[in-house]
Amino acid sequence: MTSRDGYCWTPKEGLKAGLPSVGVISPSSNISSVDTVYDVVVIGAGYSGLTAARNMAVGGLKVLLLEGRDRIGGRSWSSNIDGYPFEMGGTWVHWGQANTWHEVLRYQMEQDLNRSLEFLRGVDHFELRSTHESITMTHKEEDELVASALEKFTNIDGVYGRKAIPLPYSTFKNPESILLDWKSAQDRINEIATTLTPQERTVLEASILLASGGTLETSSFHEFMHWWAMCGYTYAGWMERLITWKFRDGQSTFVRRFFEEALATKRLSYAFNTPVKHIHNTKSSVQVTTRKGQTYRAHRAISTIPLNVLGSITFDPPLSAGKQAAIAIGHVNQTVKVHAEIANPELRSWTGVTYPHNKLNCAVGDGTTPAGNTHIVCFGGQHNHMDPEADIDATSRAVSSLFDPKQYGAKEAKIERIVFHNWSKDEFAKGAWFFSPPGLVAKHLGDMRERHGNVLFANADWALGWRGFIDGAIEEGTRVGQEVRRELLTESASRPTL
Amino acid sequence: MTSRDGYCWTPKEGLKAGLPSVGVISPSSNISSVDTVYDVVVIGAGYSGLTAARNMAVGGLKVLLLEGRDRIGGRSWSSNIDGYPFEMGGTWVHWGQANTWHEVLRYQMEQDLNRSLEFLRGVDHFELRSTHESITMTHKEEDELVASALEKFTNIDGVYGRKAIPLPYSTFKNPESILLDWKSAQDRINEIATTLTPQERTVLEASILLASGGTLETSSFHEFMHWWAMCGYTYAGWMERLITWKFRDGQSTFVRRFFEEALATKRLSYAFNTPVKHIHNTKSSVQVTTRKGQTYRAHRAISTIPLNVLGSITFDPPLSAGKQAAIAIGHVNQTVKVHAEIANPELRSWTGVTYPHNKLNCAVGDGTTPAGNTHIVCFGGQHNHMDPEADIDATSRAVSSLFDPKQYGAKEAKIERIVFHNWSKDEFAKGAWFFSPPGLVAKHLGDMRERHGNVLFANADWALGWRGFIDGAIEEGTRVGQEVRRELLTESASRPTL
Repeated sequence: MTSRDGYCWTPKEGLKAGLPSVGVISPSSNISSVDTVYDVVVIGAGYSGLTAARNMAVGGLKVLLLEGRDRIGGRSWSSNIDGYPFEMGGTWVHWGQANTWHEVLRYQMEQDLNRSLEFLRGVDHFELRSTHESITMTHKEEDELVASALEKFTNIDGVYGRKAIPLPYSTFKNPESILLDWKSAQDRINEIATTLTPQERTVLEASILLASGGTLETSSFHEFMHWWAMCGYTYAGWMERLITWKFRDGQSTFVRRFFEEALATKRLSYAFNTPVKHIHNTKSSVQVTTRKGQTYRAHRAISTIPLNVLGSITFDPPLSAGKQAAIAIGHVNQTVKVHAEIANPELRSWTGVTYPHNKLNCAVGDGTTPAGNTHIVCFGGQHNHMDPEADIDATSRAVSSLFDPKQYGAKEAKIERIVFHNWSKDEFAKGAWFFSPPGLVAKHLGDMRERHGNVLFANADWALGWRGFIDGAIEEGTRVGQEVRRELLTESASRPTL
Repeated sequence: MTSRDGYCWTPKEGLKAGLPSVGVISPSSNISSVDTVYDVVVIGAGYSGLTAARNMAVGGLKVLLLEGRDRIGGRSWSSNIDGYPFEMGGTWVHWGQANTWHEVLRYQMEQDLNRSLEFLRGVDHFELRSTHESITMTHKEEDELVASALEKFTNIDGVYGRKAIPLPYSTFKNPESILLDWKSAQDRINEIATTLTPQERTVLEASILLASGGTLETSSFHEFMHWWAMCGYTYAGWMERLITWKFRDGQSTFVRRFFEEALATKRLSYAFNTPVKHIHNTKSSVQVTTRKGQTYRAHRAISTIPLNVLGSITFDPPLSAGKQAAIAIGHVNQTVKVHAEIANPELRSWTGVTYPHNKLNCAVGDGTTPAGNTHIVCFGGQHNHMDPEADIDATSRAVSSLFDPKQYGAKEAKIERIVFHNWSKDEFAKGAWFFSPPGLVAKHLGDMRERHGNVLFANADWALGWRGFIDGAIEEGTRVGQEVRRELLTESASRPTL
């Protein structure tokens, strides 16, 4: 099946919209009656929505799932092209991510992982290209350089954040965290600027932007520290948890398991291509109206709409002032993730940073395609932002610029394919994974998590742990699904039997 | 409520059997009819059994839970004495433990944690007492010493095990792991003996025995490496995951949440003080007979009986040859965990190793009691094994011997209370947490996990990840509960409606 989402470019066929994915669901709806009153309507079929929908359906509730797209997965999905899975959004998983791994074990997929970085064959080097130099180093040198830079950045307490963020799941119980959250990454760089070598500064800034997809000024320092704490306060943990293991057959094979299990309960109704427009919360129920004008009724609704999109839905009564303030601020991640298939198998062990002048700042060899080409995955963001489909030649040049022309002629780094999803132009995402500007989380985490009458809100954007990650989405879907299930069971127990 | 389990000694009252615990369940049974045919009978109310029972009850199945003890929790339970929770078995948790943390979030207990080691006040030192010296060092020196020793021990591939065990959840897919599992800890020490300083060797051996509760010869080297891999291949990760965070109000407050949620479904029947004697597996169902002679029938049974106890139950037909072989080998952990309350608040920041001559090898300051005393937790094991209740004076001397008499007179380390559970003499445990002798896991992991007709087996002893941990128990309960739920739903869907 082909999704409307994403783009693929090849020299032969040029740029085409739409990509194949096992995440596309057919038939697109199984709703048999519009008059049904559901226990709960879940808006959004990403990991949050599917986790909540599945858990509630397994737990005996009658669930309606509405999704604007033609596919499941939200901001994480894969497209298998010529036998190779390209990850369009959230990709990496690790057994240190509690909620994700709990699901990996549930579906016995603990062996279905592939390594991203692998330095067994090929050029085996790191290319660092700034405005004033272009140098090549070993991966050992790269690790030492990046580790040193990140350690200087994170060592705010002599123990690399262990004192400042001892319990990352409840960090904002600590007043110090609130202060850290009002700092930007740039503020922190200013504090340590004199201790950084020029190369450290380049890789540090590129690493921060790779995490945040914003700019140094718009990225919260605490949010970065929180990632660091979740990774175990070390560079080795950072690499292992953030960019080492991905699903052999792609994210969409994982998320399908959630959907299929929910469907097997026979208590899941669903409709894709069905964006929601309006949510009306009454004392005892919720009415959800789609753009097409259909209204569905349920005892509860779970919105898994991302923060940056929530403002496009109208609520009656209106959302709380706190939630509206959070929506008005929004998150800052406008990551541009571009896959390039390059006719050079030697690049499998290549990594590079080209910053700050290029539109793609970082890239790594991420796999070898069945055709024997190297798949490299490249990242840009709000800094030097581009829409890859708007000027595919410029996108192509940004990929090529990652390679030093003295080392690689056009032939050695020939681009055979470019694949991407423009998350910034995606009306159901309006950005990539959540990354907060200074103060947003410290001030509004509670607001973002708060329910609105019979409407509950689940999204990785306001998870406690792996906020912005697949794991955070599952955390949130679990939390809110459990809350709704408990409430409705209690209510149904107290209803008189007729 | 008071459990039959455990012992408490005070100077005033002497040794008494039985300890208070919120894990004791009253009434001890809610079974109303002995003729009911259950969907599933779960044997054992530890974390494996409760996770399976709860998930299946939530998922709509009719569950009977049978437990030999008077309390929930199995090898993890806490006793609150004079306002302070003593942890009798499994204690520490971390957000890097996927299954445990998933449950911590489910019950919103992510803030309900206390630190074990805390070096903010008091003597702030580490005491290393071997047969030939007794020295005191700072905790920084302790960390450097233990880290150096563990790094030498684990660095079998130049990257501290990362190459040897890249994916710990499926390690035995790697032939190298099988070879490592046939090595003992002693074999590995012999390989690196010339590189170790005498102090490194002492803390290394004590650290291994603290993990395994066996002897150096009976402890699998791979099992230790597997723990190390699960901890992120670093000493910092080792300490953070294994001995840093515990529940503020004790383990039993956590495990109660599982039981209470299961009970709230109204689909859970249970009986405590009801050891199982015989399991009869027929083609379509299971009959479970208790020691009291009562037989219960169900479509499936889940045994959560530990490996070392499984041989005390008879099965008809008999268990497979592989499972019987694993049972005959058994695991080797005979940890002796002794809590001592000492009338010296300065010991809060004290840690010590007294090895190899003492009956308690390691101890750490673990908390401050409401009376202002320091709670230290002490560990012995198969090496120099003792039954603490058999000679309480000897136990008391083993505690006192942890302290250098030149530094601490009888007054400075006066013992006000001793609390413990003798896991070796416990008929439902026959040892502490699982730790494997060489070869057991490599050869029999599959056998231990295998079902026996309609009987399935869930226990931390054969978990894939945190084997021997609370997390492994929850992993197993989740796995087997899910398997039974799926099967019974499929069967019930294919049964003709009458």
